Amino acid sequence: MASTLDVEAKYDLITRRVQEVLGGDLIKAILAEGRLPKAYWGTAPTGRPHIGYFVPLTKIADFLRAGVEVKILLADVHAFLDNLKAPLELVAHRTKYYEFILRTVFTSLGIPTSKLIFVQGSDYQLTREYNLDNYRLCATVTEHDAKKAGAEVVKQVESPLISGLLYPGLQALDEQYLGVDFQFGGIDQRKIFTFAELYLPRLGYAKRAHLMNSMVPGLMGGKMSSSDPDSKIDFLDPPEAVKRKIKKAFCEEGNITENGLLAFIKAVLIPISQLRIERRKGETGVDSEEGQGAIGDQNPFVDDDAPEGTVFTIRREGKFGGPPSHYKDYQELEDDFSAKKVHPGDLKTAVNKAIDSLLAPIRKAFAESPEWQQIEKLAYPDPNAKTEPKKKKEKVYHPPPPGKGKNAQVTKTPAESSEPPPPISEDTQPGAAGEL
Amino acid sequence: MASTLDVEAKYDLITRRVQEVLGGDLIKAILAEGRLPKAYWGTAPTGRPHIGYFVPLTKIADFLRAGVEVKILLADVHAFLDNLKAPLELVAHRTKYYEFILRTVFTSLGIPTSKLIFVQGSDYQLTREYNLDNYRLCATVTEHDAKKAGAEVVKQVESPLISGLLYPGLQALDEQYLGVDFQFGGIDQRKIFTFAELYLPRLGYAKRAHLMNSMVPGLMGGKMSSSDPDSKIDFLDPPEAVKRKIKKAFCEEGNITENGLLAFIKAVLIPISQLRIERRKGETGVDSEEGQGAIGDQNPFVDDDAPEGTVFTIRREGKFGGPPSHYKDYQELEDDFSAKKVHPGDLKTAVNKAIDSLLAPIRKAFAESPEWQQIEKLAYPDPNAKTEPKKKKEKVYHPPPPGKGKNAQVTKTPAESSEPPPPISEDTQPGAAGEL
Repeated sequence: MASTLDVEAKYDLITRRVQEVLGGDLIKAILAEGRLPKAYWGTAPTGRPHIGYFVPLTKIADFLRAGVEVKILLADVHAFLDNLKAPLELVAHRTKYYEFILRTVFTSLGIPTSKLIFVQGSDYQLTREYNLDNYRLCATVTEHDAKKAGAEVVKQVESPLISGLLYPGLQALDEQYLGVDFQFGGIDQRKIFTFAELYLPRLGYAKRAHLMNSMVPGLMGGKMSSSDPDSKIDFLDPPEAVKRKIKKAFCEEGNITENGLLAFIKAVLIPISQLRIERRKGETGVDSEEGQGAIGDQNPFVDDDAPEGTVFTIRREGKFGGPPSHYKDYQELEDDFSAKKVHPGDLKTAVNKAIDSLLAPIRKAFAESPEWQQIEKLAYPDPNAKTEPKKKKEKVYHPPPPGKGKNAQVTKTPAESSEPPPPISEDTQPGAAGEL
Repeated sequence: MASTLDVEAKYDLITRRVQEVLGGDLIKAILAEGRLPKAYWGTAPTGRPHIGYFVPLTKIADFLRAGVEVKILLADVHAFLDNLKAPLELVAHRTKYYEFILRTVFTSLGIPTSKLIFVQGSDYQLTREYNLDNYRLCATVTEHDAKKAGAEVVKQVESPLISGLLYPGLQALDEQYLGVDFQFGGIDQRKIFTFAELYLPRLGYAKRAHLMNSMVPGLMGGKMSSSDPDSKIDFLDPPEAVKRKIKKAFCEEGNITENGLLAFIKAVLIPISQLRIERRKGETGVDSEEGQGAIGDQNPFVDDDAPEGTVFTIRREGKFGGPPSHYKDYQELEDDFSAKKVHPGDLKTAVNKAIDSLLAPIRKAFAESPEWQQIEKLAYPDPNAKTEPKKKKEKVYHPPPPGKGKNAQVTKTPAESSEPPPPISEDTQPGAAGEL
């Protein structure tokens, strides 16, 4: 890959490793005109983001390297609506916290961020134009179609809320209002995306392209549990916490289907390893100075003496010791693990080391930023701290009767988040929202 | 009734003749504090308003006479959304046309309009605050509850649109954003009203009172048909058109259950007749100068030589001739008609004469107002006139593909209109919307 990519190379970089592309011709046509497409990916800033976020961010890195203007939508309105427990000001702190994390991840990977734009949903989702379009859409979309579109991303409950029917339409409008050419998300968003392709033209707006990542199981294996803080690795976890959590991760010898560690290697570690190898060779994206601002260790996850073409190395230690295994692609590793030629303990050690290398610069950036530290305190206050007295609701016409809000129901993801597993549904950090 | 009404008299005037009052204590409490309550009634400015509008307006006249501040919500956003065929600028003209008609009706009746306020939905329904509240509501209200609330006023179709689920919530929010103490509508709105009573407090807003008129069948009897222009009497119909239409009205001898003429006498003509009789005696509402600006004939629908207490007179003519019948209340008339003591022909003549007296000042005001005439042309352009080329949609990102909008569906009333029969569902004046 040369530092000045041709049309073909840009398209390949934009679409590589995704599970499905809808409307690829649109992207090709833009590239052929000498333009660069614009894209968006959205997430709702609710609970603390965990390292599963590396999965979409690794793909977004490809977009940025190809020169795509990427808008990251921090869907604060959705976050606020999700449980109506976190007031808007708390959501505002979380929005800033998410931006700190996500921006730092790109910086640590040496990905140019000059074309990375953070947008808050509240910047435009409450405007006159957007809402009129939302109403127009609601007067066009049947309940049936909205329900079908949200089937995989809106929590299916016995008494579904109206908001669940609005999310697909709002997400479609976001494409128009963010002015993008394609939207990126997990394959679980497919029905939302085809809904957008169907309905935006009915409002007189263009149909956009859609890129979908395959679904990646949680790194820790099994079901992520909000009651078990060890089920997720936080971006700011210290090395000992990372070690403890990975030690507890489900990883059965020879089992490749329920293996969050293998999935993480495939979707995150090998792509990042490849990125570092390419860059060493001077192969950058459209920005030839790519990588110069990278922070932290920029070595691939490969032993120094590994043969040319290796993208991941697993060392053997202890009683299962032996020479390290060098893999040229993920499939080789998976085959070896399936054949029980790689022991779970060695896999864990390799992943642990790689994650340490990814998180070290992020922890460092946090430690060096009093502003970020302050935001973190505001966004996720210590649940053991004394709670402040509840603020009065604004615009209360008469004092609300007792029991107000008791019947408010909690819905799941606004379908804004793609993978990793929707942060919204997991937004039950110990006491985070409940205390405010 | 004295010109300075006491609390009891005001409450009686506000609530008389309605079928049901929910939350009357709230209104009483406001009156007891020496304050005057505020109310709202809404209608969507779609098709040409017909004289069925006299029904709610006659009741609203009571509110105004009692000193209530009345907001008439001209729900332009709803009108626009209803079929998505009429562009916003056309709706804006219709909104003005509705205001001309409604204001003139009150003036012609001599009802003080200093406390009458016309509000357009777009004045506040597209603001940031309102929309955030709408989203909050959508994240609180179940599909089930929304559907139940709209069961009687939202057209039930095989593939219901999402908008149908939003209307009850929007109508609830209107109470808050219009700052009223009670909402008035037809009894068909009951589920919408109890929905508002349940959900507004959940957002931290006050529960409002609700006054409901009984449902009044169409004046012409039978089903109003958009393909039959004679099925409705327009406010501006010339006398010969009124005569022709009333002649065609369904009115079966002795049949009191399917009789739009009797219903109109009960809900409109007798109350207006009573109003005129009271005013002759100097019995006004809170405004002692009430009636001084009235335009047109202000005689009650009673013969000059009728006995004291008569509110409606039916003359006998032609081969069924005889002395006129004088009625002290509606029930007497209904009993006579049921007993076939009143011939349909004589009933029609009496109603025709009364309607002529109601419409004459409105026609005159129209004839004297070039501004109103201009608005009428813009609001309901001649379907036979040459159509203008279709305007381009704004904000078209790429040219819409062929077939755009083909699948747009038409929904029924936004539940904003109470009685008369929702104008929205009848909005198929020959070519009106279709041409634009």
